[in-house]
Amino acid sequence: MTSGHDDVAYQGEPGAYSEAAALRFRPGAAARPCPTFEEVFQTVAEGRATYGVLPVENSVGGSVHRNYDLLLEHNLPIVAEVELRVVHCLLAVPGTTLPDVRRIYSHPQALAQCDRFLRSLEGVEVVATYDTAGSAKLLRDQRLHDAAAIASERAGAVFGLSVLRSGIEDFAGNITRFIVVARTDTTPPEATDKTTLVFAVKSVPGALFTALSVFADRGIDLTKLESRPLRGRPWEYLFYVDLTIGADDSRLADAMAALPASTTSVRRLGSYPSARASALAAETG
Amino acid sequence: MTSGHDDVAYQGEPGAYSEAAALRFRPGAAARPCPTFEEVFQTVAEGRATYGVLPVENSVGGSVHRNYDLLLEHNLPIVAEVELRVVHCLLAVPGTTLPDVRRIYSHPQALAQCDRFLRSLEGVEVVATYDTAGSAKLLRDQRLHDAAAIASERAGAVFGLSVLRSGIEDFAGNITRFIVVARTDTTPPEATDKTTLVFAVKSVPGALFTALSVFADRGIDLTKLESRPLRGRPWEYLFYVDLTIGADDSRLADAMAALPASTTSVRRLGSYPSARASALAAETG
Repeated sequence: MTSGHDDVAYQGEPGAYSEAAALRFRPGAAARPCPTFEEVFQTVAEGRATYGVLPVENSVGGSVHRNYDLLLEHNLPIVAEVELRVVHCLLAVPGTTLPDVRRIYSHPQALAQCDRFLRSLEGVEVVATYDTAGSAKLLRDQRLHDAAAIASERAGAVFGLSVLRSGIEDFAGNITRFIVVARTDTTPPEATDKTTLVFAVKSVPGALFTALSVFADRGIDLTKLESRPLRGRPWEYLFYVDLTIGADDSRLADAMAALPASTTSVRRLGSYPSARASALAAETG
Repeated sequence: MTSGHDDVAYQGEPGAYSEAAALRFRPGAAARPCPTFEEVFQTVAEGRATYGVLPVENSVGGSVHRNYDLLLEHNLPIVAEVELRVVHCLLAVPGTTLPDVRRIYSHPQALAQCDRFLRSLEGVEVVATYDTAGSAKLLRDQRLHDAAAIASERAGAVFGLSVLRSGIEDFAGNITRFIVVARTDTTPPEATDKTTLVFAVKSVPGALFTALSVFADRGIDLTKLESRPLRGRPWEYLFYVDLTIGADDSRLADAMAALPASTTSVRRLGSYPSARASALAAETG
């Protein structure tokens, strides 16, 4: 777990925020770009990378629901989480100035996070793409002199672009949370302090409340609760919960044993060190 | 409220599922197309339409988060809800056959809902657009003979397209739920049986559980719980809840009075007749 030689798969082009998260998780690792989130899961499942890093939530834009769905479709445990401060830059081919810009390319989430900045520009068309760093690559490949891309400063460096403006996100507290998946979980239980579960509640009044009381009664706090539709069962839901409890705490096994009274299925997606605990460990040695 | 002459604003082109929902809500009404969800809210706020119809949730794809955010930004009460069974068709310019099709256009949600069908086709490129009916319009306007669109049968009729395949959605139970907003709420309280609230919980352990216990203790059931980030406050959330209770039930006022002990803000977005109650009323006269 302490080796710097593991491959870490991520979605996007070099310079993507996911690449930065992969290197935050394993400094010096070989970060392997994948075209889609699905491919990140596949790459890890087939052993072509040790870890996969996937964004699950942004503090401004909300959850990345596709990755919650993919966690269910695959059987890869969550072994860590990484938080990354997002600083968006407006990038352009060298020589381009802000008044030259007629089109701005980026991922819809990044565009949404820079909404105020974009509204302040006049006569500029906003174009949604699949990727922040991919938009930077597009400018470089097509040598567009009347366009700009919103991406990281590193994406600008990778594709030889100038930074026209930096920190153009609307909210300074713009943080993306990534999870790390692996084929097997080798983290010692006592090193974990956070657990993610997914469950479906019985179709009776009060079932969600009863399920949540299982945690409350044992003093286990929820830091996140996310609902997703149960496909083919209109208005029934899956609930994903993040709990402040490690795998070695007996209250977790106890809670898992109590859940079936109000749920039709329960699965533990992983227990891992929280981003806060990891940062603390890094600071103290 | 019973007049058939109210204007109902919706997002999309004629033939959009939102148009069908508008006409389900007010048969014979003038349905007014708007380019964006934001514009639907604006049109109602400025009195250019009496009602606005907005999708908030699909039983397969999940919630339409943008409309939850817009409900907060505007001050328009929810006065009704509409449920619509979604039947997707593959549409093409007359003369085009399935083997001719090289590209398929539609909204990302519709594409996701027809995933299995799309995977069964070979050598076909899938292109995401802003609109199902707008994709049908694109085929007609550009007379594309090597492409198809996924949209409603009615969109096909509106734009003179043939139906190559019908019912291509992966799950038969594919239902979209729409809310109806108005400038003022004129529904008699005793005609309502559902209420939507939004609240932010205090940043202390167990606050969400305490807030939900306010409903459970009073026998009020939740049919939906949705979380959205509180912008600029990383890892704090707003919760949207749908409750099975009408505006005339004293337990609702009682619950609203109890919520501030565990929340920092509470807002009632509306009380209205549930889609089930409306369907029943229509059947019984």
